Amino acid sequence: MDERIHEHARILVEWSACIESGDNVVMVVDEGAHELAVAVADRLGERNANLLTLYASGEIKRAYLRGHRGTEFETDPDHERALYENADSVLSLRGGRNASATADVSGETRQAYSTAMQDIREARLTTDWVSTIHPTRALAQQAGMAFEEYQDFVYDAIIRDWESLAVEMQRLKELLDAGSEVRIRKTATTNAEPETDITMAIEDRTAVNSAASVRYDSHNLPSGEVFTAPTDTDGTVLFDVPMTYQGKRLRNVCLTFENGSVVEYSADTNEDVLEDILTTDDGAKRLGELGIGMNRGIDRFTDNILFDEKMGNTIHLAVGRAYQSCLPADESGNQSAVHVDLITDMSEDATVEIDGEVVQRNGAFRWEDGFEASRGS
Amino acid sequence: MDERIHEHARILVEWSACIESGDNVVMVVDEGAHELAVAVADRLGERNANLLTLYASGEIKRAYLRGHRGTEFETDPDHERALYENADSVLSLRGGRNASATADVSGETRQAYSTAMQDIREARLTTDWVSTIHPTRALAQQAGMAFEEYQDFVYDAIIRDWESLAVEMQRLKELLDAGSEVRIRKTATTNAEPETDITMAIEDRTAVNSAASVRYDSHNLPSGEVFTAPTDTDGTVLFDVPMTYQGKRLRNVCLTFENGSVVEYSADTNEDVLEDILTTDDGAKRLGELGIGMNRGIDRFTDNILFDEKMGNTIHLAVGRAYQSCLPADESGNQSAVHVDLITDMSEDATVEIDGEVVQRNGAFRWEDGFEASRGS
Repeated sequence: MDERIHEHARILVEWSACIESGDNVVMVVDEGAHELAVAVADRLGERNANLLTLYASGEIKRAYLRGHRGTEFETDPDHERALYENADSVLSLRGGRNASATADVSGETRQAYSTAMQDIREARLTTDWVSTIHPTRALAQQAGMAFEEYQDFVYDAIIRDWESLAVEMQRLKELLDAGSEVRIRKTATTNAEPETDITMAIEDRTAVNSAASVRYDSHNLPSGEVFTAPTDTDGTVLFDVPMTYQGKRLRNVCLTFENGSVVEYSADTNEDVLEDILTTDDGAKRLGELGIGMNRGIDRFTDNILFDEKMGNTIHLAVGRAYQSCLPADESGNQSAVHVDLITDMSEDATVEIDGEVVQRNGAFRWEDGFEASRGS
Repeated sequence: MDERIHEHARILVEWSACIESGDNVVMVVDEGAHELAVAVADRLGERNANLLTLYASGEIKRAYLRGHRGTEFETDPDHERALYENADSVLSLRGGRNASATADVSGETRQAYSTAMQDIREARLTTDWVSTIHPTRALAQQAGMAFEEYQDFVYDAIIRDWESLAVEMQRLKELLDAGSEVRIRKTATTNAEPETDITMAIEDRTAVNSAASVRYDSHNLPSGEVFTAPTDTDGTVLFDVPMTYQGKRLRNVCLTFENGSVVEYSADTNEDVLEDILTTDDGAKRLGELGIGMNRGIDRFTDNILFDEKMGNTIHLAVGRAYQSCLPADESGNQSAVHVDLITDMSEDATVEIDGEVVQRNGAFRWEDGFEASRGS
């Protein structure tokens, strides 16, 4: 077995999920994640955890959903709910063998099943859950990469010195927690392109140090971002990293905000999809998240939001729902049925300012070597 | 997909497990049983059952058990127990990719884990559980057969007209229920071989019509036997079908009973293993079961007791524990830590009598064509 699989398992069990002796662990294994599951089981044994293994097969799900008569599903079956209610941790090992395994299940059936399982999902989210990814050929294909190339990409993102990164991210978190306003600027590279210059209020917000560990209320491995929930957004922002939403590619999304809400929008492709998102509900026109990517192990965009939004030298803004963990106890924050992340590359001619002080310039943070040098570039 | 997999799934869900709308079903999938699991999921969907899928991987189990420090396992973890306590049915789809997947786990660890999981096993056994087998290359190898040959063998055993077989087995059950004594005789084929002539009491016993359906309290697919719990065994029996017990091959086991207990024993190979079995405890010297195989889809011995003991033209006797379902309510029956099945081929020069009347001669039952003709053969 690739030694990196063992290292991945070690990080997952020790750093991310913080498994302790006697913990009741549910490990959820995708069709293609068998090898990682074997390595994780070894670590769980070593920690004297209690292991139950579920099989998350796209093909089984498809067969079950297509076999089902009508779209009535029983709400929250007792056996599955009881399982999660008695679990301490849920480890999801993603890695399908075919990203389109459930492609011919109708949206109606999919939606009905998802709605019926809502309380079970909630029960799972109240555990110390962690979701991670095992590189499979199907995922490599989805990323447009060779298999070995994709393995390198995934392990570079996952096998980090998370403890050091958590310390560094803590610095940014503290700056955000102490600050009142964030301003993001980026010079247009062509005349046709809009200038990015956008401000948002972050007073009284608590930033989350998303260090890929339940200890930091961070549930994805890899992670590596600091995020908060801004309000009162004003200005224009160009998202120059393409992303796919429900199968549709969005390029160069541009949003203009006034008093916290989108007043103008455009996209070079599939602008109607963008319109659908923004008109979902009132909250869909306001920001729910400002995230600053800090995982420098991620060196390219693969159109997988799990990786893209964590990439160093990027920021992302999400329209829609805000995370409760960023908000003061007495505030409910922005509400919406959607939460759609949009990404801007900050590696050139770009700055992040907090209360008028530049904290990141051209991707370099002010505590990093090269920050001053980056001024001139 | 092989059409027989769909037919297997249909029999499992409809005939064996009798799944109904709203049932909470746990499907336990071995590493090599994915295809059957997909077909079963389709049927479960069609019945509007609630499906949760577990992954029973020998490699994961090995890693977990070997990773474990010491041999202390937590007794009956809550999450797993809660799952089974809230399940209506458990469908185990056996079919590993390597019959020796856990070969290097110590017996001590294995035993400790098994003991710790005892209540969970019991919880599973109180559901409408069914265990079946998906033909894999590993199982074919274990049976000494080519893969396609083994697939034919397994599906011939599973894809039967179970409803008709259940009716036929009911006839034998009724004869056994009404009878007081069973006598089994078989002529020795060589002078060196002992004559089989053994009698046992079955008064007040209830035979089980093991028709591969929870409706008949029968939990294996395939099945196809009628069995009861005899007492007061007297005489000598030669088991001429070889079998493997804990990795050791036993050939031509011969047992002589007096007043219900073994007084003499021999075997052509591994007689010490036989001795170990018989000296486990007091009950290990008495019979726990008389079974009469009636599945004519099984046409050869494969050293897998699941199939061998169900084969038409065979009877099996088990030393050790009796099944409660065969006993009067006020009787506890034979108690033992073991239950070891031993098989005799009844296809030639052999009879089964109940209260002096021949009910099977040379494999033919008295209600079958050829029963009278078989007298002369």
